[in-house]
This record gives sequence, C-alpha cells and structure tokens, in this order.
Amino acid sequence: MAGEDRVLANGAKFIDFQTDPSRYRHWKLDVAGDVATLSMDVDEDGGLFEGYQLKLNSYDLGVDIELADAVQRLRFEHPDVKVVVLRSAKNRVFCAGANIRMLAGATHAHKVNFCKFTNETRNGMEDSSENSGQRYITVVNGTAAGGGYELALATDHIILADDGSSSVALPEVPLLAVLPGTGGLTRVVDKRKVRRDHADFFCTIEEGIKGKRAAQWRLVDELAPNSKLEARISERAKQFAETSARKTDGKGVALTPLKRTVDDKSLRYGFVTVDIDRTARIATVSVQAPDKAPPSDIDGMIAQGASFWPLQVAREIDDAILHLRINELEIALLVFKSHGDPAQVLAYDAFLDANKSHWLVNEIRHYWKRVLKRIDVTSRTLVTLVEPGSCFVGTLAELVFAADRSYMLIGSREGDNRPPPALQLTALNFGPYPMSHGLTRLESRFQADPSDVERARGRIGEALDAEQAEELGLVTFALDDIDWDDEIRVFLEERASFSPDSLTGMEANLRFVGPETMESKIFARLTAWQNWIFQRPNAVGEEGALRRYGSGQKPKFDMTRV
Amino acid sequence: MAGEDRVLANGAKFIDFQTDPSRYRHWKLDVAGDVATLSMDVDEDGGLFEGYQLKLNSYDLGVDIELADAVQRLRFEHPDVKVVVLRSAKNRVFCAGANIRMLAGATHAHKVNFCKFTNETRNGMEDSSENSGQRYITVVNGTAAGGGYELALATDHIILADDGSSSVALPEVPLLAVLPGTGGLTRVVDKRKVRRDHADFFCTIEEGIKGKRAAQWRLVDELAPNSKLEARISERAKQFAETSARKTDGKGVALTPLKRTVDDKSLRYGFVTVDIDRTARIATVSVQAPDKAPPSDIDGMIAQGASFWPLQVAREIDDAILHLRINELEIALLVFKSHGDPAQVLAYDAFLDANKSHWLVNEIRHYWKRVLKRIDVTSRTLVTLVEPGSCFVGTLAELVFAADRSYMLIGSREGDNRPPPALQLTALNFGPYPMSHGLTRLESRFQADPSDVERARGRIGEALDAEQAEELGLVTFALDDIDWDDEIRVFLEERASFSPDSLTGMEANLRFVGPETMESKIFARLTAWQNWIFQRPNAVGEEGALRRYGSGQKPKFDMTRV
Repeated sequence: MAGEDRVLANGAKFIDFQTDPSRYRHWKLDVAGDVATLSMDVDEDGGLFEGYQLKLNSYDLGVDIELADAVQRLRFEHPDVKVVVLRSAKNRVFCAGANIRMLAGATHAHKVNFCKFTNETRNGMEDSSENSGQRYITVVNGTAAGGGYELALATDHIILADDGSSSVALPEVPLLAVLPGTGGLTRVVDKRKVRRDHADFFCTIEEGIKGKRAAQWRLVDELAPNSKLEARISERAKQFAETSARKTDGKGVALTPLKRTVDDKSLRYGFVTVDIDRTARIATVSVQAPDKAPPSDIDGMIAQGASFWPLQVAREIDDAILHLRINELEIALLVFKSHGDPAQVLAYDAFLDANKSHWLVNEIRHYWKRVLKRIDVTSRTLVTLVEPGSCFVGTLAELVFAADRSYMLIGSREGDNRPPPALQLTALNFGPYPMSHGLTRLESRFQADPSDVERARGRIGEALDAEQAEELGLVTFALDDIDWDDEIRVFLEERASFSPDSLTGMEANLRFVGPETMESKIFARLTAWQNWIFQRPNAVGEEGALRRYGSGQKPKFDMTRV
Repeated sequence: MAGEDRVLANGAKFIDFQTDPSRYRHWKLDVAGDVATLSMDVDEDGGLFEGYQLKLNSYDLGVDIELADAVQRLRFEHPDVKVVVLRSAKNRVFCAGANIRMLAGATHAHKVNFCKFTNETRNGMEDSSENSGQRYITVVNGTAAGGGYELALATDHIILADDGSSSVALPEVPLLAVLPGTGGLTRVVDKRKVRRDHADFFCTIEEGIKGKRAAQWRLVDELAPNSKLEARISERAKQFAETSARKTDGKGVALTPLKRTVDDKSLRYGFVTVDIDRTARIATVSVQAPDKAPPSDIDGMIAQGASFWPLQVAREIDDAILHLRINELEIALLVFKSHGDPAQVLAYDAFLDANKSHWLVNEIRHYWKRVLKRIDVTSRTLVTLVEPGSCFVGTLAELVFAADRSYMLIGSREGDNRPPPALQLTALNFGPYPMSHGLTRLESRFQADPSDVERARGRIGEALDAEQAEELGLVTFALDDIDWDDEIRVFLEERASFSPDSLTGMEANLRFVGPETMESKIFARLTAWQNWIFQRPNAVGEEGALRRYGSGQKPKFDMTRV
C-alpha cells in the first residue's frame, strides 16, 4: 500500500501511527524528577518495511513514529518534566540519519510523506519547548550525520563531545545527491544563524565538523570533554529546568489507546469517522459533536482524561489524517463534515477559553493547533461541506477555514427535517490556532482587508446562516437545495480528475498567504526543492547516488545545471 | 545547445539576450509625451526555436527578451515616460501565455530557465514602477490566459473590457497539469490579495473569469465597456502620470549595442571577460576596473552615456550571466575575479553615492541591484577569488558577498609583483543593493549578530587585507600562497563532481536567509514547486498533459498524491 518495492514488516496491512512506550523498539524514555532522558537505540531488525537493516541508529518512519509519540506523551503524561535530554544509547554514533537503503527503495510518495512527518515531529519538539516549557538538550557523543544532526537542530541546545571524533555533518549533497530532508538547511542558517558561506562548506563535506570549529561556526552550542560530559549534561539540565516556564499541578493525563476499527472502506473512532470511496477518490471525515456538556471544572476534565471531548477528537483527527496521508495515496479529496449539537461544541470552546491558563488546557489548545497545521500541509484537496445537522462552530469551524473551498447550504433540504446549517465563531477562531506562517486562518483569509477579521469578530456567538456566512466571507459558496447536489458532484468529480501533482503545488502555494516563518519555509521552500531533487535521476535513477550508495560504484550524474 | 529536441531558428548558434526596438518582431513601443504604449503583437513565425508557431500572442523566451529590453530602455532612454500602457495589438486576445508546444518540446532545463527569466522581467516591471515611477497599466481586451494574465499581474493596474467575453484565467492546473510559471499563484493571493478559496476556484477553471466577478474578486482593478475603453485608458494614464514620482531632466541615455565577441571558449566585452573551461566545467568571469577617473559631473556622465563605467559593466555582467545560464548548461561554477585599480572603482562608487538623487544615477544603482539579484538566483555555484591585482571594492565587493564561498590570498604570490589583494567597503555595500528578500548581502551574512554589520560599516574606506577581511567575516577563507593553488583546485574539482540538482537546491536555500518577500517567495517556494511538477510524468510524460495538449487525446495521470 505504501511502497511499490517495499513490503511492510511482520505482515502489517498498513502503517500505524499509534504506539506507546511499552511497544517502543527504538527509544527508551526515562523520567527522573523534572528531567527526562530520551535515548535512541534503534533496533536494526525493527524496520517498518522488509529489506533493510537500521544500522548505526539510522531511522525510518517507524522510528520517528515512536519519537513523535514520546514527545507527545511527555507533554500530556509528564507534567513535571521540564527538560528532555536526547542522546544515543549506542557507542560512537549519535544517529546516522534516515536509512539510505530504505530511501533508495521507497516510492517518491513515501519519501515525501516520510519527510513531512519527520518535519512535523521536529517542529513539535520546538513547539513543546516554546509553549510547554519542555526544553530539549541534545548530547552528541559520536557522529550526528544528516537526519541525525537535523534531529539535534530541532532541540534548544547541542552539547558535542570534544573527543577528537564526535562530529556533526550534513553529508547529503556530497554523498547522496539529495538535500537534508528534515529542515537542516533552513535550521542551520535561519535558526542557528550559521554564516551562509560556512554553511556552504559544512553542507558539502562528507566528514562533517568536530571540536572547536563546530562551536565557533555555531553548529553546536558547546563542547565538553568526555571526562566532564555527564557532569555538563546534569548542569545544563538543571539550569534549563530552573528557567523553564512549565507550571503544572503534577497530575498528568494518560493518552490511553485510541478505540479504532480500520477496514477497507472506513476508519471508525469514538467521535470521528472516515468513509472511503475509492471510485470517487474521496475520503469523508465526519466529526461528531460532544454527546454531553463539558465538565463543570478542571478536576472534572482531568477525571475524563483522554476521553475529554476536545482531546479525544484531536487525537482521532490526527490519527485519521496521518493514516490517510500515507496509507491512502490515491485519495484525492478530504471532505470534512460534522454532526451534532452546536451548543455542545460551543460549550467546550467556552471551557477551553475560560481555563486557558491551566497547563492541560494549554496543551490541548496547542495540540489542536498542531492537528490543524497538519491538515494545512496535507497534500489533498480539502473541502468542507456545511450541511443541515452540522456543528461547524469555533474550533470545528477551523475545518471550514482550513479548506481549499467550502460550500454551505442555504436553508434546509427537501425531506430533511434537521435545521438549516449555521456557522458560529468563538474566541478560538481569533488567535490560539495560528497556521505555520503565524497568521490565523481568518487573517490569512482576509489579507485584502484586515477589517474583515474585525467584522467577523463582531459576530462571535451568532448563529450565521449560509447567506450571512457568505456575506462575511466565511464560506466560498452558499448554495440552495436545488443546486447543491449537482454543484458538489461536478466539483468533486472534476477535482478528482486533475493531475495530483499540480494540485499539490497549487494548494501549497494558495494556502499560505503573506509572511513566512522558519516553519513555513521548511514546509514550503525546502520541501519543494527536496521533492524536486528526490525524483531527479541523479538521486534516484539506476545510476543515481541513492541507488549506488554502498555498492562500491560511484554514481553517474547528468551534469546539466537546471 | 539549449534544448534536446529543439533547434534554434534561423541558424542561430546561441540564445542572444541583446536586441533593440529596430529588431523587435513581437512588440511595438510607442511614446507620446509621458505615456508609452507597449503593444504585444507576436509574430507567429518568429519563434526562437524551430517547430512551433506562436499563435494567439503566445510567447517563448524570444518574445520575453524583447519585453525585457523594452522595459529596460523605457527606464534609461525615456526619462519623460511616467506611464506604460501594456496592451495587445491583436483582436480578441490579450495574450495566451507561454506557448504550449514550445514547453512540451523543451528540456527541463530550458523550461526552468525560461521561467526564471520571465520572472525577472516581471519583477523588473514592478521595480520600474516602485523605483523609477514608471507605472504600468494593462488593458485586457480579449482573453488573458496563463502567462498572459501573469503579465498583467505584474503591472499596477488592470482594466478588463466588459464585453461579455474578455476574461482573465490561470488554466494551467486543469488544462496542462503544471503551475502558472511566472509568479501567478503568489501574485494572485499575495499582491492582489484574492481570497484563497476564490483563488482556488479561479485556478481550477479553464475558462477563466470575466466581468463583474473578476472585479469583485480583485482579479482586475476595473471594468470598462468597449465603448468607453479608450477614454478610460487615457483617463487612467493621465491620473497615474500625475501621481508618478518620476523626476528627470528629460535627457535619456541610449543603450547602444554592447561590443561583444562570442566564441566557443570565451565571451569578451569591454570590461568583462568570460573564459570557459569545459573540461573543468568552470566559467571565470573577470571584471576590469575603470581605466580612467569618473567624469567630474552629471553632464560628463550623460556625455559618456552607455560607456559610463558602472552602466557598461552592469550591462556586460548582465548579458554574460544570462548567456551562461541558458547557453552553457554544463558549467558548474562561476568564478568571479577582478582586475585593475581599486582607487578607480572607489571613485565611481563615490560618484554614484554623491549623485544618488539624480534620476540616471538612480537608474544605474537600481540596475546594479537587479544584476546582482540575477546572480543571486543563478543556479551555479558562485565563487569569488580575491587575488593580487584585484579590485573588489564597494559595488564590486558585492560579488564577494554574493558568492557561495570566497577565498582571499594572504600577502602576495611568489613571482607576482602585484600588491597583495585588499577588500574595501563603501556606502554602497550598506543599502542600495538589497537581495530579493529585502536584506543586503552583508545583513544576510551577519544574521547571527547584526552588530557585525556595524563593525564592517566602521571600516568603510579601509583597504582590508586577507586576515582583516577574514576576521571581519567578509570572506570565507584567507589562504597563503603555499596552500592557495591546491586548496582552490581541490575545491573546484570536488564541487564540479557533485550532483548539479542537489547543489541547486542547497544553494537556493542557503543564499536566502531570514525574511521572505513576494519576490523571494516567487523564486523560492513557487519556483521549486514548479520545477518539481515540470518533470513529473503527469505533465511531461508521453501521456502527460503538456504532451497531449491539442492532440485530441486526454492525458493519463498517475493518481498517487505525493
């Protein structure tokens, strides 16, 4: 399903993004007081696909799924943790980066999706540091090459062992004829602000840089001799913990396993359902409103734990999007729908807004932000249909604004006794869920006239019918019952007939209007260049560098500069 | 030379970027007072290559070379012109965009370079409006499709005939499975601030949008019925001329033909020489200092006209870079050298700085800015060697800062009695030549610590030797005579052996640090996506949309979403 050349290991039928520490094969998570240690110890025989070994702490998507899980659990399950020390449990190697044999045998689509997910994981680490006060320290004791160094780049502080051999490197260009795939080029110059000519030198040498030059050129934050390494780590961890902004009450929420059934036609969770129509190439993602009022207070929320509606729905949508992205490559469109009582969604939004200073509410709001960002960078056409019985209110209305297009029914449908649909805005549409380029979806939408954002804000709490929503610019088209079926059908059919590549490029460009941030640059500029290079014969052809790596044969390049 | 499948028309041996109005085949330039009219009237049989006809005002690189020439001459030769009206001389069509048969038969490298140049031409129009007060008005009387509408998007004001059939369209995605190639997506949402869901609709319909909706959705600035069209154009031209910031003395400078000889091994101009080493895949671009002091005043400069050193050198470098980009695709590295008396370069910089309020000096400074920007986006490794006898001073020092790497010799060379090289900064390194993302090259270089820019500014006018320049962070490496030859040779050889694609992607990412502007987004994000799509089989394969266009056969797509 996920690769032409590759078969999933252990008879797995699809790539599963759900895991937990008891099942980790590649990472070990130890918590001691306010410091967690996340140790990378990749199981060579634990590859996601058959046909390669994960030597030297190299990784594939399966390794990164565990990392993403650990980063997420640290935020929700470990409120006391203020510092995460990331290190290798292997000798003389921190991490060799993405596994090259895996890359060489993977389809273009798998490579691109693999990089997208690993980027999201690393952005998630930075988000954790910025918004949850869990700061990351990397200990490079051995070699950190390619994706290994890129992992370090996503942390707040890099300590390099000053032992004459430990080094950091981005050898992709000279060794593999591809780019560092997880934000490395951007983070080197934009985050670490390495001078561009130094970066040019660094990114074109296979052997990397060690010792004093690594620190002078800002590639690492500090050096420590082996004899003092452990003491230095403790010292830095203590210092970072003391300055952490993390303030919690110490009671974590267990991210219990999602209840999910997967078959060929659907994914079913508690509040989210995905129906797959392979002929039409459409996956319909339906979100159900809460079936009861929010808890009366914080203790009630904590008692509900992972079944607290906003948290459960965020986890379910997140899993569904990830599943569709990588396991359902021929699906052209994601159609979002919602069902249930808008008043309940509104009540949960009010709860999230009233209690935003509580650490767990803060986590849930930031998680929703990340889930919505994941949707924004999903390379499928996103459509939201606002129909009778729907509850696109506040947080769920972001699914309307994230869509490439939205359609809203005017009035009701013949033979349907549910009330006409209404959109409702809440405070949560005006700040807490920015896109990766820093603007809210409404700010992005109303670039032409920012006063339109204020106009919309003035209507918070009103149930807006289709004509009002259209007039306010909140939906693309308001249609009446007579036109609805035909218009939607023609649109969906036509869209599914277009070249998926051109749609991906078009949507990626139209969705992100205006400013750029490091994060958006990584997803936009860097990812696009990499997609290009990832399918050039110089990289992936029979004589290309990825295929020939380790074969003893040098790659043969077409030397045309493009 | 430029295409595998294509042969240049009329027996041309290379693509020539030099032209003048007497040789135009596709455009007509009429000047009446302060309004110029630039009429597009593409000669069907005037294609740059054999094998296609330029129907319906569709264009190829040859058409755009003439447009770029006209835009440039308007700035230098027509100081009185404050408004340029861009329109079609054909009936019922404004411009059908890039010629599809040309695209279908062009190599990937040609398509990418074609788009790069057309982007530069359109950015140049916007630069003209912003910095020379020559404002552009487009009259769309007929259909403006694809590149045709993108041309309109690069102007300040679009008047659409309200005749029931004139329309604007970006039909690339539905029709050709590629993206609009000249900034269209970015300009629609970032410049014209069309709402992203409206843009989604607009970019996925073949037929485009006409009349009232085009204006309501901000795709055009105004509508005019045919009966009032000419009056409206005059009215707008008058209004734009009245508010133009262009202040000149009315004496233009003729851009006389460049003196140039081209053979298989070199390009020779008055002050610029390019030596081509095909085995090493290196083109060495040498710039000669002025051979005499600058004129004593503005009148002296005007008397010199196109032979005024800064103007002549800018034109020569510009032509050389364009030539190398498109005619020498296997050249991996551009090595910049300079020769001559640094004091003379300094004197010209002082002249340009002292007289910056004069319109012609303003033009020359902005032209240098554009030439340097062209270098920044050139997909070749840029290296600058600062050797004895060189004159990398002020404006020419930008060639050091534009380079991916620079090397400077410490002291002198054995057997070379020229003085040791010295770098010198002038005021022109600190503002007038920003890169496309808005920062100067020194600001880009010193992102880590902006005080380094101030430190460099404090040394304006000092002759800095290699060790001083290295200490100030102005060059990558200072090497002494013993190491020079070997280090440079090994670097050049190794660099030329790398995959050109990965170098292109790496350099494009490392050169542009920090912020983005619409212009840099077009070159970075949009171009990269387009490069990717331009080589996907869905576009260029035997069954792809570009190849099958007009054949009566529908394209066949691989529906995998990536």
